[in-house]
Amino acid sequence: NEWRSRKKVEIIQYVMLKWGFALIIGLGTGLVGFFNSFAVENIAGFKLLMTTSLMSQHRYVEAFLAYAGVNICLAAAAAALCAFIAPAAAGSGIPEVKAYLNGVDAHQILSPSTLFVKIFGSILGVSAGFVVGKEGPMVHTGACIASLLGQGGSRKYHLTCPWLRFFKNDRDRRDMITCGAAAGVAAAFRAPVGGVLFALEEAASWWRSSLLWRTFFTTAVVAIVIRVAIQFCATGKCGLFGEGGLIMYDVSSSNITYSVNDILVVLLLGAIAGILGSIYNYLVDKVVRTYSVINERGAAFKIFLVVSIALLTSCCFYFLPWITNCSPCPSGSTMSCPSLDESGEYKSFQCPPGYYNDLASLFLNTNDDAIRNLFSPRIVKEFHISSLFIYFATIYFLGIITYGIAIPSGLFIPVILAGAGYGRLFGRLVESMTNLDRGLFALLGAASFLGGTMRMTVSLCVILLELTNDLLLLPLVMLVLLVSKTVADCFNKGVYDQILKIKGLPYLEAHAEPYMKNLVTRDVVSGPLITFSGIEKVGNILHALNGTRHNGFPVIDEPPFSDAPELCGLVLRSHLLVLLKEKIFSRDRGFADKSILQTISSLDFGKPGSGKGIKLEDLDIKVEEMDMYVDLHPITNASPYTVVETMSLAKAAILFRQHGLRHMCVVPKSQGRPPVVGILTRHDFMPEHVLALYPDIKPHKWQ
Amino acid sequence: NEWRSRKKVEIIQYVMLKWGFALIIGLGTGLVGFFNSFAVENIAGFKLLMTTSLMSQHRYVEAFLAYAGVNICLAAAAAALCAFIAPAAAGSGIPEVKAYLNGVDAHQILSPSTLFVKIFGSILGVSAGFVVGKEGPMVHTGACIASLLGQGGSRKYHLTCPWLRFFKNDRDRRDMITCGAAAGVAAAFRAPVGGVLFALEEAASWWRSSLLWRTFFTTAVVAIVIRVAIQFCATGKCGLFGEGGLIMYDVSSSNITYSVNDILVVLLLGAIAGILGSIYNYLVDKVVRTYSVINERGAAFKIFLVVSIALLTSCCFYFLPWITNCSPCPSGSTMSCPSLDESGEYKSFQCPPGYYNDLASLFLNTNDDAIRNLFSPRIVKEFHISSLFIYFATIYFLGIITYGIAIPSGLFIPVILAGAGYGRLFGRLVESMTNLDRGLFALLGAASFLGGTMRMTVSLCVILLELTNDLLLLPLVMLVLLVSKTVADCFNKGVYDQILKIKGLPYLEAHAEPYMKNLVTRDVVSGPLITFSGIEKVGNILHALNGTRHNGFPVIDEPPFSDAPELCGLVLRSHLLVLLKEKIFSRDRGFADKSILQTISSLDFGKPGSGKGIKLEDLDIKVEEMDMYVDLHPITNASPYTVVETMSLAKAAILFRQHGLRHMCVVPKSQGRPPVVGILTRHDFMPEHVLALYPDIKPHKWQ
Repeated sequence: NEWRSRKKVEIIQYVMLKWGFALIIGLGTGLVGFFNSFAVENIAGFKLLMTTSLMSQHRYVEAFLAYAGVNICLAAAAAALCAFIAPAAAGSGIPEVKAYLNGVDAHQILSPSTLFVKIFGSILGVSAGFVVGKEGPMVHTGACIASLLGQGGSRKYHLTCPWLRFFKNDRDRRDMITCGAAAGVAAAFRAPVGGVLFALEEAASWWRSSLLWRTFFTTAVVAIVIRVAIQFCATGKCGLFGEGGLIMYDVSSSNITYSVNDILVVLLLGAIAGILGSIYNYLVDKVVRTYSVINERGAAFKIFLVVSIALLTSCCFYFLPWITNCSPCPSGSTMSCPSLDESGEYKSFQCPPGYYNDLASLFLNTNDDAIRNLFSPRIVKEFHISSLFIYFATIYFLGIITYGIAIPSGLFIPVILAGAGYGRLFGRLVESMTNLDRGLFALLGAASFLGGTMRMTVSLCVILLELTNDLLLLPLVMLVLLVSKTVADCFNKGVYDQILKIKGLPYLEAHAEPYMKNLVTRDVVSGPLITFSGIEKVGNILHALNGTRHNGFPVIDEPPFSDAPELCGLVLRSHLLVLLKEKIFSRDRGFADKSILQTISSLDFGKPGSGKGIKLEDLDIKVEEMDMYVDLHPITNASPYTVVETMSLAKAAILFRQHGLRHMCVVPKSQGRPPVVGILTRHDFMPEHVLALYPDIKPHKWQ
Repeated sequence: NEWRSRKKVEIIQYVMLKWGFALIIGLGTGLVGFFNSFAVENIAGFKLLMTTSLMSQHRYVEAFLAYAGVNICLAAAAAALCAFIAPAAAGSGIPEVKAYLNGVDAHQILSPSTLFVKIFGSILGVSAGFVVGKEGPMVHTGACIASLLGQGGSRKYHLTCPWLRFFKNDRDRRDMITCGAAAGVAAAFRAPVGGVLFALEEAASWWRSSLLWRTFFTTAVVAIVIRVAIQFCATGKCGLFGEGGLIMYDVSSSNITYSVNDILVVLLLGAIAGILGSIYNYLVDKVVRTYSVINERGAAFKIFLVVSIALLTSCCFYFLPWITNCSPCPSGSTMSCPSLDESGEYKSFQCPPGYYNDLASLFLNTNDDAIRNLFSPRIVKEFHISSLFIYFATIYFLGIITYGIAIPSGLFIPVILAGAGYGRLFGRLVESMTNLDRGLFALLGAASFLGGTMRMTVSLCVILLELTNDLLLLPLVMLVLLVSKTVADCFNKGVYDQILKIKGLPYLEAHAEPYMKNLVTRDVVSGPLITFSGIEKVGNILHALNGTRHNGFPVIDEPPFSDAPELCGLVLRSHLLVLLKEKIFSRDRGFADKSILQTISSLDFGKPGSGKGIKLEDLDIKVEEMDMYVDLHPITNASPYTVVETMSLAKAAILFRQHGLRHMCVVPKSQGRPPVVGILTRHDFMPEHVLALYPDIKPHKWQ
C-alpha cells in the first residue's frame, strides 16, 4: 500500500538502510558478545584464582567463604537488576524472541531496559558460577538491538530518529529481529553459519531467501568483529580473556575409524540421551511452574530464590570434589600439574603435590573450561567413573533447578555440560565394547543431549561443528542427533516450546492440528462482527472502538457509493486512532478531498514501538464532532487476505501462519449475504479456543 | 480431503513409509555417489597412468594419441547415451529439479531412462577429461531415485507397487525429491549438511521444518554410506579410489592471522571474481543458446559437437604444458618427485629427471587432484604466474564452451577449478601486499567464483567448509561470498536461473515483480471461465474437456441443490477423466448413492507418474451416455484457495507460490454476481503474460 507511492530514490534509501541496519546489528551484537566473554572470563577467572590461591595455603574455610561470598554477591546483583529494572529479562529469551517472530507482541520483551539488564545480568549470572549459559541472553540481546534500531530508537529515552520511519511495519521489524537472533548465536558460540541456521530452524516462523542472505551478512559481520577482537586480545591486553580462539572447544581429532560395533554403541548413547533429555524437559517444566508462583510474590522473593540457588551451587561445587580421590599427575604432560593458572586443567585442590583432583577441574572452573576438559582426549586427561557420575548428576540436577530463577539464563551450556558429562561417563562404562575415544563420547553425549532437549537438527549440527572443529565426526553427530530427537519427541515437546506454553504466549504451530481438517473457517468465527462503512460517522467508530478490543475492522462500501454492498478492505484500530486524534472529519458524507488526503499521507501510520501507540483515552472528541463523517478509504488496506467460509480450518491456519497475518476476512460462498461473514485472528486458531467451541473433538497425536 | 478418511493404522503406515523412503533415497544416492567416484577414479586414473608411462618413454605422439583417443571414445559413448536414450539427461539437472520443485512438471525429467543415462553418462563424461563435474548430475540422480520411489516404481518397466499409493500427490512427491536433491549434493561432495542447505537455499521452493528434519536424515544416511565405503576401500580393494577420505580437499590450515590489509586484498579478490562470474554466466548463456540450435538438428550433430569439444579439451590439456618451463623438484618434499602414481603431485612430463612440469600437474590430472594441487599451501607447492594464468584462462574458456553439449555436466567443479586458478594467480600477483598463503587464496578464489556464478550463500559456505575443513577461514569465506554475489547480482542472474529461462520453464520467482503491486487479480484473469454444476451432464463435461486445456474447473452448486448459486469447490481434469473412464453415471440428476461412493473411493485418484495419466482419447463414451449425469461432489476439492478479485496481484502471486498451488479461484467482492469470476494458474502470474496484457507497464529492477 505504502510502497506504491514511493519514489525510486526512497526505495534506494530503503534498501541501503536495511543493509546498513544489518551491519549495525552485526557490529553491535559482536561487540556485546566480545564484552560479555571478556567480562565473564575476567570476573570468574579472578574469583577462581583467589579461591585456588587460598586453598594452596590450606585456608579452606576462608576459600569457601570467598568463593561463596563472591558468587552470592554477583547473583544478588543480577537478581536485583532483573527484579527491579526489567523482569522480562529473566530466563533464556529465546522463547520470547520466537514468539515475537511468530507475531506475538508481548509487553516489554524488546525494550531498552530489557536490553540493559540482559547484557549485565547475563555477565553477572554466568560469573556467579550458576549452571547457566550466555547464548539465550545473547540471542535476546541481538533481538533487542535490532528492535531498537527498527523502531528508530526509544521514544522513552528521547532517542528517536524520524528518518527511520520506513521500518515501522511488522515485516521489516521481524526481518531485523531475525537478523538479531542469528547474530546472537553467532556471537555467543562464535558460530556464524550456525547462527543463520538457528534463526532459520528455531527462531523464525516466516522465511524468505532474501532473509537468508541478510542474516548471513549479519553473522559474517559478527564473525569478523569477534575475529578482530580475538586477534587484538592475543597480545594479552584483555586480562584473562582470549582462550579458545575462534573455535571455542577445539577437539580437531585425528583420523578416527569406527566399526559397526561402535555405531551400535553410539545409537544406544543417543537413545538414552533422548530419554534423559525428555525427563530434563519435564522437570524443567515443573520447576519453572513452581518458581513462577514464588517469583510472583515480589522482588524480595525473587532475590531470595536466586541467592539460595547460588548458595546451593557454591556448596555443591566446593564440597563435592572432597569426595573424590586424588589422581597422580600424568608424567608426559606439557601442562604444569597441578596447574597454576585460572583455567585449571589439573586443579590441586586438597591434594598433595604431584597429585590433582579431577572433579575440581570440572567444578571449580568456568563452564567453558569444564567443557574443554570433558572434550579432551583420553591421552591428555582421564576421569574416574565416580567423578564423572557425581559431576553429571550434579549438573543435571542444578541445571533443572536453576532455570526459572530471576536471572538471564541460557540453556545451551547447562545441556552441553550435562551431556558432555553423560557422554564421557557412558564412554567409560562401555570402554570394553568400543575403542572410540572418550573425548569423542563426551562430544557425542553433548550433541545427543542437545537433540533430546532442544529438538533442533541442522542448526545444532553446524553449531557443534563450529564449536569443536570436528568435521570427521559429523556422520556420528548427525546420527545421535536423529536418534535422541526421535526418542525424545515420543514423550514431550522441545524445551523452548514448553516455556512458551508456560508463559501463555499464543504461539501458532507450523502445522495445523489434525482435527482442524474436519472444521471449516465458518465454524470458529465467533462474536458479533463489527463493520464500518467506507464513510462512517465518528460516533459509530468511537462506539465500536470502545465496545470491543478488536484490532481490525472490515470496511464495506454500500450504496450509493457502490452498486451493491462490497468488501472494500480492512482498517486497523491504530490507524483509526491516528485519524480520530488528528480530527480528519468532514460535515457531509462524501469522499475526502485532495487537501485532506495530503494531510493524511503526512501522518505517521507506522507501527509504534512496544506499547507506545495512541490510546483511546488520549482522544478528545467533542459532542458536535460525533455526528461528523470520516472517509476511511485512504487508510483502508484494500487487499486483505480472505478465505471462503467453507475453507478447511487447517488450510486457513497454515495460510495465516505462513504469511504472518494478524487478520483474515471470511467471505461467504453464496450470494445474497453480507460480503464479509467474519474476521479470524490468531486467537481463533489456538487449539484452546477451537476445543472450547467443540468439546467433543478428541485431539490425537498423529499428524 | 483424503486424509480425513484415513484410519490410524494407515497414518502410522504412511509415516513409517515416508521415513523408509528417506532411508532408501539416502542409501541409493550414497551408493551411486560411491560407484561414480569409484568408476571415475579408476577409468581416469588408468588413462592418466597410461599416458604418463608412454611419456616417460619419450613416446610423445603415441601418448597424445592414447590420451585423446580414450577421451574421444568416452565422450562419444556419453553423447550417444544422451542422444539416443534420454536427451533430458544432458546438462546439469539442477535447473530441472529446481523447476520441478517449483511446480513445473516437465516431460521426462525424472524418468528411469534419464536416471540410467545420468549415472553412466556422468561417469563417462567426467572420465573423458571434460571440464565438467558430477554434482549437478548427482542432484538429478538423487531426484530421479526419489521420484521413482514416490510414484511406486516405473509402470513402463513393470516395476510398480500398488502399496505405495499414499504418495501419489504433489506434496509428498516434492518432499521426497527435495530429499533426493539434498542427498545428491551430500553424495557428490561428501557434504551432508551442505546438501540440506543446498536443498533449502537453491532447490526447494517450499519448505517446512519437518522437511528440514527429513532431508537431514537422508543426508545423514548418505554420509554413513560413504563413510563405510571409504573405510572399506582404505584397504586398497577399490583400485585407485579412496583418496581424500571423507574430506575431499583437506586444507586444514594452521592458525592463520590476517590484518586489515589482508582483508582489503580479499575484498578486491571478491569484487573481481564477481565481475568474472557474471561474465561467465553471460557467456554460458550465449553458448547454450548457440548449442541448442546445433543440438536440435539431430543425434549426429550432438555427438559431433561432443567429440569436437573432447578433441579441443584433449589438445589444450596435452599441448599447453609444453609452453611452461620445468621447475626443479623441491628438496625437502616427502612425496617422490617426479611422481610415479596417477595423482601426480609432480608430473615429470617432458622434463629431465629432478625437474617437474607444474602446469602438467594441473592439466594432466583428474579434476579433483587439480583442485587439491591448487589448494595446497605454498611450502608444499609453487606455481609460476604464467602457468597459473594459462591454466585459469583455459579452464575459464573450456568451462564456458563445455556446458550445453549433450552430456551430463555439473557446473560446480568447472567453477571451483577456474576460481581456484584465479585465486592462486591473484595471490601471486599481490604477494607483496599480503602474507596470506596462496593455497588460502586459491580457496577464497573458488569461493568467490562460486558466489559470482551460483549466487548462493549459506549452502556454498557450508559445502566449502565440508570440502576443505578450514573452519578458521570461515569469516573470510563469508566475506568474499558476500562481495562477489553482491557485485555479480548487479549485472545478471545466477547461472541456474539463466538456464531455467533458456529452457523456457515457467518458474515462479519467490518475490513478485514490483509492477504487480499496482494490479489486482481481476486484471489478469483471462479467457472464458468454464464451470460445472455440482451434478453435471456427461456431455457438457466431455465438451469442456475437449474444448480447453484447463486442468481445474470450479464446481458451482445451483438451485435446487442450494438456496443461491454457491462455490462448491474445484475439480481436476485428471479426476474427471477417472470418473468418466469408470463411467460412474446415473440417469437422473441427483446425489450419488452409497454404493457409487464406495466405488469412487476405491479408485485411483493419485497423481500419475510423468505422462502416464488417462488421456481424453482413451475414453469411450457412448452417445446415450452423453445425456446422463455425474455427481461431482465426491471428487471436488471443497476448500480450494480463493482470493477476492481486488486482491493485489503481488500478494496473490506470493500466496500462489508459497503454498505451491496449481489453481486459485477468484471470487467477487460484491453481491449479485456469479460466485467465481475466474481461475488463476501459474501461467497468469508469469511476467510475460502480465506484460503482454499491460504493455504500458515498465518493469524496473528495484525490488
